[in-house]
Amino acid sequence: MLSFNSVIVRYGEISLKGKNRIAFELKLKSNIEKKLEIQREDFSRVILKRGRIYIKGIKDVPELKNILGIYSYSPALEIKKDIEELEKEIVNFFSVLKGKKSFRVRCQRIDKKFPLTSIDIERKFGEILFEGTKIPVKLNDPDLNFQIEIGEDNIYIFFEKIKCFAGLPYETAGKLVSLFSAGIDSPVATFLMMKRGVEPVLVHFKITDKDYKKVLLLKEKLEVFTCGKKMKLYVINRDELFNEKFSSLYKNEKFYPYMCVLCKYLMHKKAGEIAKQVNAEGIITGDNLAQVASQTLRNLFVYTTVSGFPVYSPLISFDKEETIKIAKEIGTYEISTMKSEGCIPPKHPKTGVSLEVFNRILEETELK
Amino acid sequence: MLSFNSVIVRYGEISLKGKNRIAFELKLKSNIEKKLEIQREDFSRVILKRGRIYIKGIKDVPELKNILGIYSYSPALEIKKDIEELEKEIVNFFSVLKGKKSFRVRCQRIDKKFPLTSIDIERKFGEILFEGTKIPVKLNDPDLNFQIEIGEDNIYIFFEKIKCFAGLPYETAGKLVSLFSAGIDSPVATFLMMKRGVEPVLVHFKITDKDYKKVLLLKEKLEVFTCGKKMKLYVINRDELFNEKFSSLYKNEKFYPYMCVLCKYLMHKKAGEIAKQVNAEGIITGDNLAQVASQTLRNLFVYTTVSGFPVYSPLISFDKEETIKIAKEIGTYEISTMKSEGCIPPKHPKTGVSLEVFNRILEETELK
Repeated sequence: MLSFNSVIVRYGEISLKGKNRIAFELKLKSNIEKKLEIQREDFSRVILKRGRIYIKGIKDVPELKNILGIYSYSPALEIKKDIEELEKEIVNFFSVLKGKKSFRVRCQRIDKKFPLTSIDIERKFGEILFEGTKIPVKLNDPDLNFQIEIGEDNIYIFFEKIKCFAGLPYETAGKLVSLFSAGIDSPVATFLMMKRGVEPVLVHFKITDKDYKKVLLLKEKLEVFTCGKKMKLYVINRDELFNEKFSSLYKNEKFYPYMCVLCKYLMHKKAGEIAKQVNAEGIITGDNLAQVASQTLRNLFVYTTVSGFPVYSPLISFDKEETIKIAKEIGTYEISTMKSEGCIPPKHPKTGVSLEVFNRILEETELK
Repeated sequence: MLSFNSVIVRYGEISLKGKNRIAFELKLKSNIEKKLEIQREDFSRVILKRGRIYIKGIKDVPELKNILGIYSYSPALEIKKDIEELEKEIVNFFSVLKGKKSFRVRCQRIDKKFPLTSIDIERKFGEILFEGTKIPVKLNDPDLNFQIEIGEDNIYIFFEKIKCFAGLPYETAGKLVSLFSAGIDSPVATFLMMKRGVEPVLVHFKITDKDYKKVLLLKEKLEVFTCGKKMKLYVINRDELFNEKFSSLYKNEKFYPYMCVLCKYLMHKKAGEIAKQVNAEGIITGDNLAQVASQTLRNLFVYTTVSGFPVYSPLISFDKEETIKIAKEIGTYEISTMKSEGCIPPKHPKTGVSLEVFNRILEETELK
């Protein structure tokens, strides 16, 4: 069996330029190295070259899917940059085609000065493979996609591009505090911001042990994407958040429908305090417009402005199905949907809290 | 040719319940009616029934793709809810199968008390269609998907579910001011919030006539989704936003790198004033983390908190390709990428403006 000796890593983000680009590339390279070390992979080195990162001298094909910032990668055979070498190597690939119904050869030249054009190479090696195997060429949707990349220093042969999450490398954007519950939304929101380079500091408001245990599992799931770094988790107990007056609201008919908004208000206030402590530059929430009764524009207005920090809600425009799809992709869905024991929201929460009324309530309850 | 006489409309949003649900459903029904009237469609009536909206007595199949809140729709033949009637009708469908390679019958019962089960119906009518046409049944990926829905009052026959944008009906969430440029991002951000029910009030900061004309075209594109309602557009001229001190910054080496952030700061301030005027409850931006140099967490902190309003940036976690994909789907991409003449940003804008420094600049430039 023919084995690969390298990996080609592709990253996207077409809009990055100049100084920023190089910083992002170096961070991605170092994140890849960390991940390989954690996985105890055998490799000789990772090099950065014109829009590609190459992992050289591998023994086994590493798992890179969870490294944020990678667009796709390909386990590959690296050979000398020499067309005769390629001709010699290609006969070893006859066995790979065995049993396939069809194939095609695709060539991409990173080195535009290479003497043969992409089409020349595709034709030449298509013929060699056909002559050697008699397996027919099929340009559309072939059984095997035989790919040749003419790099700056080497030639690479590979068969697949494994798609990853794209985005930007972890820890390139700064720190945000994330309001982190045991539900479906906040882990997905946190992940989406991580995917843009954010390092999240999790804040969980603990109501029950059951939910707290779920939070620990969710945190672990997200740490798959941090290339070995542990995430910080602040756990705030009920009594730290609510005073006695707040708890007495449960029995107060007038205030009871405002419970959700009041609770979120207090959470944001606390999150703002933590953001200051840890030098974070904003707050992440799983809020989604009009998804549940407490997340109306009016309510969001009341509680998202209290901290003075910008609030980032990447799910704000999502349909629930879109959120669930991502939760399944990143493996948090199973945990989030485990049996829960959180708070019991009022049956008919206020959907349109006005700032004036809300401020009056804050004064009456001494929660401001 | 067999023609349809009705349309089945499906809407999603699994998390809506109770009182809210009925309000959303009624709004969706009324938006559909408005759209049909604008298109001058001939129809007898639109009815709402257990998780479905039916358009009855149509002459032509209407275009419903742009009605927000619709998950999918199916042009259908409505017949009496009677199995003998279905048997009589089904022979008229032999001609539809003509030339097809394979088919299958799928049945869904909204009325769970209907005497025949879904499987009974699938088997029975699969046989009738096969006997009449000799076209083979294929359960996976057939050439024609023959679908029967047993509704509460009627039976429907249809072949396709046309996917729409889902989301929530237009004008169910409230009003937001949208910072609206001629670029790719802000029209997509505005659309995504419209898709959650928001009515946007557009604010364009006019630098050139060319871009202003693009903005008018983009506005028109988005009005495809408003079921006939015109969107408000505020146009703010350069001099209304910038004082002389600001314009002189261009020549000032010290302040020049801060231009982008200062400009955004002034836009948000102005947007906040307009939000107050029009009773909007927040601001929409096309901001996207770390996409361009001015959109770092630090810079966002400085300018997104100035208005005192919540700021909604639905693209915050998107990769550029994701934004472009939606822009193409809604038809704004072509316009946004037309030749532009906007502002010329500094070559090396500040990527990490601190609040302290920024406040000092505001004072020195008298722009606070």
